[in-house]
Amino acid sequence: MFIPSLFIFSLLFASSQASVVDFCVADLSLPNGPAGYSCKKPSTVTENDFAYSGLVPGNTSNIIKAAVTPAFDAQFPGVNGLGISIARIDLAVDGVIPMHTHPGASEILIVIQGTICAGFISSFDNVIYLKTLYKGDVMVFPQGLLHFQINSGTTTALAYASFGSANPGLQIVDFAFFKNNLPTELLAKTTFLDIAQIKKLKAVLGGTN
Amino acid sequence: MFIPSLFIFSLLFASSQASVVDFCVADLSLPNGPAGYSCKKPSTVTENDFAYSGLVPGNTSNIIKAAVTPAFDAQFPGVNGLGISIARIDLAVDGVIPMHTHPGASEILIVIQGTICAGFISSFDNVIYLKTLYKGDVMVFPQGLLHFQINSGTTTALAYASFGSANPGLQIVDFAFFKNNLPTELLAKTTFLDIAQIKKLKAVLGGTN
Amino acid sequence: MFIPSLFIFSLLFASSQASVVDFCVADLSLPNGPAGYSCKKPSTVTENDFAYSGLVPGNTSNIIKAAVTPAFDAQFPGVNGLGISIARIDLAVDGVIPMHTHPGASEILIVIQGTICAGFISSFDNVIYLKTLYKGDVMVFPQGLLHFQINSGTTTALAYASFGSANPGLQIVDFAFFKNNLPTELLAKTTFLDIAQIKKLKAVLGGTN
Amino acid sequence: MFIPSLFIFSLLFASSQASVVDFCVADLSLPNGPAGYSCKKPSTVTENDFAYSGLVPGNTSNIIKAAVTPAFDAQFPGVNGLGISIARIDLAVDGVIPMHTHPGASEILIVIQGTICAGFISSFDNVIYLKTLYKGDVMVFPQGLLHFQINSGTTTALAYASFGSANPGLQIVDFAFFKNNLPTELLAKTTFLDIAQIKKLKAVLGGTN
Amino acid sequence: MFIPSLFIFSLLFASSQASVVDFCVADLSLPNGPAGYSCKKPSTVTENDFAYSGLVPGNTSNIIKAAVTPAFDAQFPGVNGLGISIARIDLAVDGVIPMHTHPGASEILIVIQGTICAGFISSFDNVIYLKTLYKGDVMVFPQGLLHFQINSGTTTALAYASFGSANPGLQIVDFAFFKNNLPTELLAKTTFLDIAQIKKLKAVLGGTN
Amino acid sequence: MFIPSLFIFSLLFASSQASVVDFCVADLSLPNGPAGYSCKKPSTVTENDFAYSGLVPGNTSNIIKAAVTPAFDAQFPGVNGLGISIARIDLAVDGVIPMHTHPGASEILIVIQGTICAGFISSFDNVIYLKTLYKGDVMVFPQGLLHFQINSGTTTALAYASFGSANPGLQIVDFAFFKNNLPTELLAKTTFLDIAQIKKLKAVLGGTN
Repeated sequence: MFIPSLFIFSLLFASSQASVVDFCVADLSLPNGPAGYSCKKPSTVTENDFAYSGLVPGNTSNIIKAAVTPAFDAQFPGVNGLGISIARIDLAVDGVIPMHTHPGASEILIVIQGTICAGFISSFDNVIYLKTLYKGDVMVFPQGLLHFQINSGTTTALAYASFGSANPGLQIVDFAFFKNNLPTELLAKTTFLDIAQIKKLKAVLGGTN
Repeated sequence: MFIPSLFIFSLLFASSQASVVDFCVADLSLPNGPAGYSCKKPSTVTENDFAYSGLVPGNTSNIIKAAVTPAFDAQFPGVNGLGISIARIDLAVDGVIPMHTHPGASEILIVIQGTICAGFISSFDNVIYLKTLYKGDVMVFPQGLLHFQINSGTTTALAYASFGSANPGLQIVDFAFFKNNLPTELLAKTTFLDIAQIKKLKAVLGGTN
Repeated sequence: MFIPSLFIFSLLFASSQASVVDFCVADLSLPNGPAGYSCKKPSTVTENDFAYSGLVPGNTSNIIKAAVTPAFDAQFPGVNGLGISIARIDLAVDGVIPMHTHPGASEILIVIQGTICAGFISSFDNVIYLKTLYKGDVMVFPQGLLHFQINSGTTTALAYASFGSANPGLQIVDFAFFKNNLPTELLAKTTFLDIAQIKKLKAVLGGTN
Repeated sequence: MFIPSLFIFSLLFASSQASVVDFCVADLSLPNGPAGYSCKKPSTVTENDFAYSGLVPGNTSNIIKAAVTPAFDAQFPGVNGLGISIARIDLAVDGVIPMHTHPGASEILIVIQGTICAGFISSFDNVIYLKTLYKGDVMVFPQGLLHFQINSGTTTALAYASFGSANPGLQIVDFAFFKNNLPTELLAKTTFLDIAQIKKLKAVLGGTN
Repeated sequence: MFIPSLFIFSLLFASSQASVVDFCVADLSLPNGPAGYSCKKPSTVTENDFAYSGLVPGNTSNIIKAAVTPAFDAQFPGVNGLGISIARIDLAVDGVIPMHTHPGASEILIVIQGTICAGFISSFDNVIYLKTLYKGDVMVFPQGLLHFQINSGTTTALAYASFGSANPGLQIVDFAFFKNNLPTELLAKTTFLDIAQIKKLKAVLGGTN
Repeated sequence: MFIPSLFIFSLLFASSQASVVDFCVADLSLPNGPAGYSCKKPSTVTENDFAYSGLVPGNTSNIIKAAVTPAFDAQFPGVNGLGISIARIDLAVDGVIPMHTHPGASEILIVIQGTICAGFISSFDNVIYLKTLYKGDVMVFPQGLLHFQINSGTTTALAYASFGSANPGLQIVDFAFFKNNLPTELLAKTTFLDIAQIKKLKAVLGGTN
């Protein structure tokens, strides 16, 4: 072809005013807003903002024999403004991710290793959707609904959860109920749980009142 | 002014192909989609599609001494596609709206009569935000978070809850846990509740397994 | 159940980088953006950010015998980023909320007291949807359309308007036309109103030119 | 390079279930929904769905000496679901596009020929933003705000208006007030216009009551 | 606690008009719309709609030594309307996912096995962001940008790609240029590629003209 | 009518806390966020923020005999947050806008002068949609898809492109491939282009490696 010269080509789209259109890597040092964090200056963005190596095996030597390791915007600034994120889930034998919701995102779980029994509860008629998932299986949990995962096999299980938000949130019912200073009487009244049950779990989880 | 004739004026915006741009009143007889119901033909829409008189006092002669009466898209077709809806909340003395979430909407509560203690739990550090609300007070509950309302006064209370969705959903934790066939063992494992506690509430609420 | 120890439980979701995912209370001292105000630091947020007691009876001793009292993001910082807000409407006998639009939000009106005649005008064929609303009735006004409310009863009327935006805007046609320096000739040309009519209303509302 | 065979290449992304991901050309024969019309079957879509030749000069032999010719989803099915559309504006000498809003879209006007005086009114303090636009100038009108265009030159003017919606709507204040059966008394009460003024314009525009 | 009876509890939220609020499983037999497919009737939805076992190892005995196996809405109806999906990527030794875009979604890649060199090109200054990813590493590719993945290790590689759309699309540049009937002259003119180069790749990929 | 006094009218909507609801003119001196730039203080906004005269004829004395002149948010701050923008396209005889995408926006092209052959490629089955457009014709290019425009007439051509984003981006395939430091071997591997072809175009466009 007939390509005579380089320098004139660069005239095609010469805007004196630079603007980053493709991404908005989070600048965690600035105040955030309803749509996410402010963007880092493009000249300071590198490939390391878009990759993350922190999804290492979690420590499952705990009561739930499980660990959730997030790569949300606060850990992985490259996803800011892009509406997606991911987390690693480790489940030792008998491990459990207790009943929880993500207030602002749907989730897809992909099982990498082991066997996981997962389920969610519909807000319509309280229907349970329950599946045993094997290596390579995926399951979707619609936004905001109560769901859980348990290791239903005999070996360690590993899964990744991808989310439709850079910051999906995680509200674990047990923590919300028993790991704060919500008064026991109020909690009993709004959950129908017995006082003794509440006090027992508050003691375990560190709740007061 | 100089306004010579009517008929030519109508030429301004004469499109042979009619299109409803302003609203999309739900046609509940057609399949719905991710964004809501299909629209009724404009020629069949009347003012009655945009008004609703069904927010009458709810029957609070029940265990929670409370009633929620919705005007969501299924009851009030005019809100379809507009991203808002409303519900009436009646609380008899000692009435409670138990711990619940709206999976897809934030809520503003406005107290019309009586005194209501309301609260929500943040997914960050499980912080409780708790307020006693009097006539005329409003409170906002961010999307997807666990919250509750109780009548904390000595008279009947009335409130309206407005939502940022035509179909906000309502997931009551007690119903989700105890009013279905979710196996007791599985529920115990994912909530840390005692088996006895679960069986007791399943018995009350009609849950099986 | 078998809950051996507390401290290991806290390992479940330990992110060194805090992030508020659930809400974004407006920091009105910082610049806002297209999606709303910047978020207050979570440690400074209290329950008072989520509740508002300013929806007191408005002063209706004015020409329209009406008052609109907003709880939008600028007054009620907790709604920032949540896409909802509310306002109180007081109508004395013969009170009128004149023809207006909310440029960026749909509205649901709930009548608390009195009788209100409300209506909106479709942009398609200029159809009027007009209803007389009694205590407990609701009506929805689709986004951006001209609408109005008048007290059509014999007593004071009270209503709340909920919106699908934290900042719905309010453009009153009379104010937009007659309460600024829009030149009379230009206004006549673009509205077909008589010069005398324009001058009369400009005099009343304080418009110039 | 080393490219041995064709047929195995086609294995890369062979989904037995076809799905159109790129566009959703409107099937105007099916009911529409809140997000737009249903999609035509991909096999019936042609290049003619994505191009439109109907933006021909409008007839300006009318009272406003102007014409608006839309290419919205109902005329130009290819824009369905894509959130954009366009219209042609012809203004004869002294032509006027009267005060109007687009309830659901912002607009950019580009002047192709002639001189246009355009303005919009902010809902905040009723500030007027007014500009005389020459060939090649653009002006943006934020969503839902009252605005107008007039031919302020001595020749015919031509402009295109592009919108951030496939169906932006068009609510002309004069039509909304005077070209329907909205009762004169009610209109007077909600606009402060004189009865005589209303009757005069209703007579011109065909309004009743 | 004091829970006298079951049947009255069910009065709390008794809406005669059923409505599915939590999800919208695709009914692939109905026309789709801009927001996705119509919803299946809730009574026909089962747990199998929310899980998918089709992400099996792809056949990499092809020219690119790679395979992409999607779980988008057309394969995995449960993600319809939820704004997320996932795909499996198999890369044999020397395997390549050629330069491509997803027109409507950002992507997170998680490496399960092997070593992958991945990169994307910014539309601003054509900057390349290039990373070698090892087992457990993630990388994000912002919406619509050109990107690629190659097996840069000595063993088979496996990864999952999660997307912020139920139907992210996949436009492979080589396919778009050389695997259709786009005239060679036109392609040369719009890509600056040599005619011989174009004809060579058209021959391989099955393009005509 | 009965309009007694001005000053009381101003009580209608008196909020002590000002808030700009209608627009968010970009303050280019502040960091931007995922939804766009921060807003200028309303008191500093003028009509000049909403109009732009910079869409002047571009210099087409270059290799592609074409020029694109943008009025995106960085050039035209009034469009910030409004989701629309526009650009001017000049095509000399034989001018070409090479294969490109806008990663985050759909586009409507309107031909003002001359004859333009335009086309886009679907990601589904690589179908080409190709049209010759004459003065006054419009064509829509769905979001993120590869497309191009060439002057197919015998005179200079002029067109405007409107976008459904204030910052649509522009990724030209030739620039992305050949005008940076993407290693030739990697590019060959991910595009199947011959090394010689790549080196030839890198030489022209200034690419290295």
